[in-house]
Amino acid sequence: MTTMSGFQMTAPGEPLSPVRREIAVLAADDVLVRVAGCGVCHTDLGFLYDGVRTRHPLPLILGHEISGYVEDAGSRLRALVGKAVVVPAVLPCGECAVCRGGHATICAAQVMPGNDRDGGFATHTILPGRFLCPVPGAASDPDAQLGEAPGLTLRHLAIVADAVSTAYQAVERSGLRGGGLAVVVGLGGVGTFAAQVAAERGAAVVGLDVDPRRREAAAKIGVGLALDPREIAGKELRARVAEFARASGAPATGWTILECSGTPAGQQTAFGLLVHGATLMVVGFTLEAVSLRLSNLMAFDARALGNWGCAPQLYPAILDKVLAGRIDVVSHAALRPLSRIAEALEDVHARRADRRIVLVPDREEMA
Amino acid sequence: MTTMSGFQMTAPGEPLSPVRREIAVLAADDVLVRVAGCGVCHTDLGFLYDGVRTRHPLPLILGHEISGYVEDAGSRLRALVGKAVVVPAVLPCGECAVCRGGHATICAAQVMPGNDRDGGFATHTILPGRFLCPVPGAASDPDAQLGEAPGLTLRHLAIVADAVSTAYQAVERSGLRGGGLAVVVGLGGVGTFAAQVAAERGAAVVGLDVDPRRREAAAKIGVGLALDPREIAGKELRARVAEFARASGAPATGWTILECSGTPAGQQTAFGLLVHGATLMVVGFTLEAVSLRLSNLMAFDARALGNWGCAPQLYPAILDKVLAGRIDVVSHAALRPLSRIAEALEDVHARRADRRIVLVPDREEMA
Repeated sequence: MTTMSGFQMTAPGEPLSPVRREIAVLAADDVLVRVAGCGVCHTDLGFLYDGVRTRHPLPLILGHEISGYVEDAGSRLRALVGKAVVVPAVLPCGECAVCRGGHATICAAQVMPGNDRDGGFATHTILPGRFLCPVPGAASDPDAQLGEAPGLTLRHLAIVADAVSTAYQAVERSGLRGGGLAVVVGLGGVGTFAAQVAAERGAAVVGLDVDPRRREAAAKIGVGLALDPREIAGKELRARVAEFARASGAPATGWTILECSGTPAGQQTAFGLLVHGATLMVVGFTLEAVSLRLSNLMAFDARALGNWGCAPQLYPAILDKVLAGRIDVVSHAALRPLSRIAEALEDVHARRADRRIVLVPDREEMA
Repeated sequence: MTTMSGFQMTAPGEPLSPVRREIAVLAADDVLVRVAGCGVCHTDLGFLYDGVRTRHPLPLILGHEISGYVEDAGSRLRALVGKAVVVPAVLPCGECAVCRGGHATICAAQVMPGNDRDGGFATHTILPGRFLCPVPGAASDPDAQLGEAPGLTLRHLAIVADAVSTAYQAVERSGLRGGGLAVVVGLGGVGTFAAQVAAERGAAVVGLDVDPRRREAAAKIGVGLALDPREIAGKELRARVAEFARASGAPATGWTILECSGTPAGQQTAFGLLVHGATLMVVGFTLEAVSLRLSNLMAFDARALGNWGCAPQLYPAILDKVLAGRIDVVSHAALRPLSRIAEALEDVHARRADRRIVLVPDREEMA
């Protein structure tokens, strides 16, 4: 096997084009990963449709939510060969001053697959191997049952690479504890995991989403109160959330608000829910500006924290919770063949996909 | 002495009116402070001119930046009688869940003089005494020299109650360390101390102000690069700050940006200076909204932290630095008689005051 195949982006708005490439000789710190699954994220759509620029010039194979097998490795990482892994969506260098200072997610030398290098919408991808997260108990069959959650396979774990881990780091950074109150704005690809992670810590969880199907399904992800922020807004929304907090025994201050919609309306809703000592996690992304009274952060002694990716150190704990069935990914994933990537991207763009799509390389492509 | 006199606010936009009152019997946890000085803050102007509402209904004696002597004390605080003190602008209860959890600045039972109760634009004020900060080495004469800084008196220490301590807590919370880069937006009443505190920690300091006099004086408060954000803005400003960081040996990431202007323009400038891992401290206040790309917090893995007041626990360290002359308040204060409060407020409102005004009760009023 000396070639790989995949789909590359050539220009914004253009369809992805199939590509077949020679597999390059590996650098000492790189590994060749045979892709088991690669999730489709709104970040990919931002590159494709919204004019967000990839850091590596086009053409580029997108996809940064990868699980797979280490098929080959550079001289310094031979011990990884054969291992099943989840690939953190942000791979820091581990050596620079910011990495050593504990802020790996801003490492200037970080590699994000499908942004800094070719990514996972392919049969194989070559990546820095240092921070890949081995999957305990994984067999050589990517469709084999893993852990305690019925139906869980290595392919589903692709979602851990970004959607689950981003949500997890956001909750972790917020300092949310059991007995606290979390409000998740946007119960989509990341928000659905933010709610689960918050509930798993023992917090009372409010979920806001404009989509009635998501609100109806919200109880399954630990949401105790699901509301439509287009129907209930402003002071009424604050009052309803405060009432729920009281009824749940959560405090009236120090709420954790997780903005996962990546929309201006969602950001304004989230900002409007600030209370004294609140923490607003800015998890979703939009290029658009919003009008806010920034001084409310001062008046409420509150804070707004951005969240980019997830530090590799957190992945083993996340994976443990997923394997133990404490965070459900199976119900939130839809496996589809990589050959039908165009349709998958269209479905996500048109918001027709009610689960996170994981693209799985077709058998014939893998041959 | 059974009466006190002062000036009370009766309605927004109306002149303050002189008032003489009986001194009430003290509750067990209260103290009677004879005012040595009370600083004029933009928060007072917000109440008077901008429609910000005081938490206690009007009429109310404003003023929350107080130094003085404990002249009498309730049964539980007798040991304080005779002590010279600085009165933290925010006095938490010390007993509730948020206080015990280390977040005293959002204590729901907090008392801010001149907002929750009558404040310091008076000969005397009655306050919860628990968290007053005793001034080491103070004599009974409020005009006596204190510490190492020539000209420093107890009256000047009024400024420590809010302007200096707010700046100090903001820098403390930001995590700024020696060798880092701080950008102070607005070199006014609080910003001038934010710059000093940042410089005292060994950070390289950029100061932004539209006032040429403040920029000219900025070197004295530790500012290494002073710029006019109306002349140099956007990418050019970022580039100039980055160049200064490089020349100072400070990193290109993780800047601390201290927004002390409390203006929409200043907030936009501050937000526009976000770099990877940056911390924006929202210290100034304005009722106005600003248009921002909130998602930049996510894209830069950055954060915006509000800062309300200062936890009482930080005051002794701040006072030490002021008494040692490591933070200069003398050059930044102008003592004026309390009887001329109307003129003082007008001067601050019209931005004619180039120093922070400390109102000093007149001798005849104290009799």
